[in-house]
Amino acid sequence: MELKAYLSRRREMVDAALDRLLPAQEAGGRVLEAMRYSLFAGGKRLRPILCLAGAEAVGGDPERVMFCACAMEMVHTYSLIHDDLPAMDDDEFRRGVPTSHMVYGEGLAVLAGDGLLTQAMVLLSDPAQTDGLDPCRVLEASQVVMKAAGYVGMVGGQAVDLASENLKPDLAIVQYMHAMKTGALITASVQSGAILAGGDPEQVRQLVRYGRRVGLAFQIADDLLDLEGDFNALGKKVGADLARGKMTYPAVVGVAQARKMGQELVDQAAAIAEGLGPAAAPLAELARYIMARTH
Amino acid sequence: MELKAYLSRRREMVDAALDRLLPAQEAGGRVLEAMRYSLFAGGKRLRPILCLAGAEAVGGDPERVMFCACAMEMVHTYSLIHDDLPAMDDDEFRRGVPTSHMVYGEGLAVLAGDGLLTQAMVLLSDPAQTDGLDPCRVLEASQVVMKAAGYVGMVGGQAVDLASENLKPDLAIVQYMHAMKTGALITASVQSGAILAGGDPEQVRQLVRYGRRVGLAFQIADDLLDLEGDFNALGKKVGADLARGKMTYPAVVGVAQARKMGQELVDQAAAIAEGLGPAAAPLAELARYIMARTH
Repeated sequence: MELKAYLSRRREMVDAALDRLLPAQEAGGRVLEAMRYSLFAGGKRLRPILCLAGAEAVGGDPERVMFCACAMEMVHTYSLIHDDLPAMDDDEFRRGVPTSHMVYGEGLAVLAGDGLLTQAMVLLSDPAQTDGLDPCRVLEASQVVMKAAGYVGMVGGQAVDLASENLKPDLAIVQYMHAMKTGALITASVQSGAILAGGDPEQVRQLVRYGRRVGLAFQIADDLLDLEGDFNALGKKVGADLARGKMTYPAVVGVAQARKMGQELVDQAAAIAEGLGPAAAPLAELARYIMARTH
Repeated sequence: MELKAYLSRRREMVDAALDRLLPAQEAGGRVLEAMRYSLFAGGKRLRPILCLAGAEAVGGDPERVMFCACAMEMVHTYSLIHDDLPAMDDDEFRRGVPTSHMVYGEGLAVLAGDGLLTQAMVLLSDPAQTDGLDPCRVLEASQVVMKAAGYVGMVGGQAVDLASENLKPDLAIVQYMHAMKTGALITASVQSGAILAGGDPEQVRQLVRYGRRVGLAFQIADDLLDLEGDFNALGKKVGADLARGKMTYPAVVGVAQARKMGQELVDQAAAIAEGLGPAAAPLAELARYIMARTH
C-alpha cells in the first residue's frame, strides 16, 4: 500500500466529518468560532486515523466509527489548547498558526477547550451516530476514551509534566508521564475503534499492546523533532522543550538511544499489527512511519 | 415534610458517595488533590439532590442514580473552577475558601477542572455504576448532561457572560445567558435522574419544564443574594457582579421586579411538581425554598 496516499485520503474523510459534526453556526458565537479555529488549524488527524484503522483491523466499516474518530480529535485539540495556555506551556504558535489564547484571549481559549471536550462526549452518546451499534459497546468505548482523557490519563500526565520542569532528568518519570499524556489517548483511539466495530477481546487486547508502543514512539519522535526540526517543518518554536528544562527522552537518554528505543517500539508495534492479519496492514505501516518522520 | 432535614440527609448521602467515587489516592498526585479540594469546599449539592429527586419523582430508587448525581456535581464544580480563573471572573474566594488557582496556581486549576469534567464522563459510562440499567437510557442521560455542559449550554453561557460585561443591560441577553449558564445543568440534573430511573416521556417532559423554571429562579436568587447578602453568608465578595458591570436580573429589571419574577417561576415549578403526584413533593418544596433563601 501507498501510506502517504492512504493518510491523505483518510485525513480528507476526517476533515469533512469534523466539519459536518461541528458546523459553523452564527448562533454558536465566538466560542464555537474558537473551537473550530483550533480544530481546523492543520492537524495530522493521527488519532482519528488510528480509530478508523482500529475498526478496519477487526473487520469493521471505518465510516461507522467516524463519530468516535472525530471525538478523539476533539479531545486531542482541547488538550492542545489548554496545554498552550500561558499558565501551562505558554506557547504562542502551534502548527504554524497563533495558538487559541493569542487570537481569542485566555478566557475564551479555556472555554474553547472545554467546549471541544464536552462536544466529544456529546458525539459519543449521540443517538444519530450510535443508532444500530450495540449500546453496551458504545458505553465501553466512552469509558475507554474518558479514562484516557482524565486524571489517570492525559490530565494526570500534564500535571506531572508541569511538576517536573527543571527536575533532574529521570527515565521512569518520562515514561510514566508520556504514557499518560500521549500514550493513553493514542491507545484509546485504536481501542475504541475496535470495540465499536465489534472486535473480540483478544483482538482488542492486541490493539492495546500496539497502541501503547505507538504512543510512546510517537512521543519520542516528537521530542527528537523538537530538537532537530525547524520552525517551518514543525510549525512551532524549535528547542522550546530544552529551553524550558522539559524532561524529554533525548534529555534523559541522549539522542542516539532515544532513536533506538523509538525504533524498537515501532518494530514491536508493526509485528503486533501483522499478527492481526491483512486488515491490520495499515496499522503496521503507520507504526513504521512514526520513526521514519525523524530521519 | 421537613425540607431542611431532607436536604441535610441528602447532602450527607451525596458527600459520602463523592468521597467513594473520587477517593483520595497518593498516586493521583496534586491534580487529584486539587479536584477534591474544590469538590469538598462546602457545596450545597443542589444539582445532585435534584437528580436524586428526579429519580424519586418517577418512582425510582435515588441510590440507583447516585453516580449520575455525583457526575452532576463534578460538572458543576469544574465550571466553578474555570469561571473563577483570572482570565474569567477572577474570583479569589468561593464558598468562603480560596479558589483553586489561589491555592494550586492557574495551570493546576485548569487541569483540576478538566479532571472533574472527564471524571463525570467516566462515571456516566462506568460499568460498575450502570450495570443493570438500560444502556440506552444511560446513553440518553449522558447526552442530556453533556449537551447541557457544552457550547449549547454552560460553556456557551459563560462565553456570552464574558462578552456581555459592561454592555447595556438587556433582559433578553440575561435570560438567554442564564438559561445556558445555570439553567441547562439544573434542568439536566432532574431530567437525567428521571431518565435513568425509567421515567416515561411525559414525566420527563414535565420535569424539564420544572427544571427550566427552577434554573432561572435559582440564578435570580443568586443575583439578589450577591446584592443583599454579606460575605459570611455568601462566602464570596458581595457586590462583585455590580462592580464588574455584570448583567444581572436586578441590574436589568430592578430588585423588586426580579424578586417578583423569581417568585412566579418557583410557583409555576412547584405546581408542575405537584401535578406529578406525591413522589414529586420534595421537588415542589425545593422550588419554593429557592426564593425563600432571599428573604
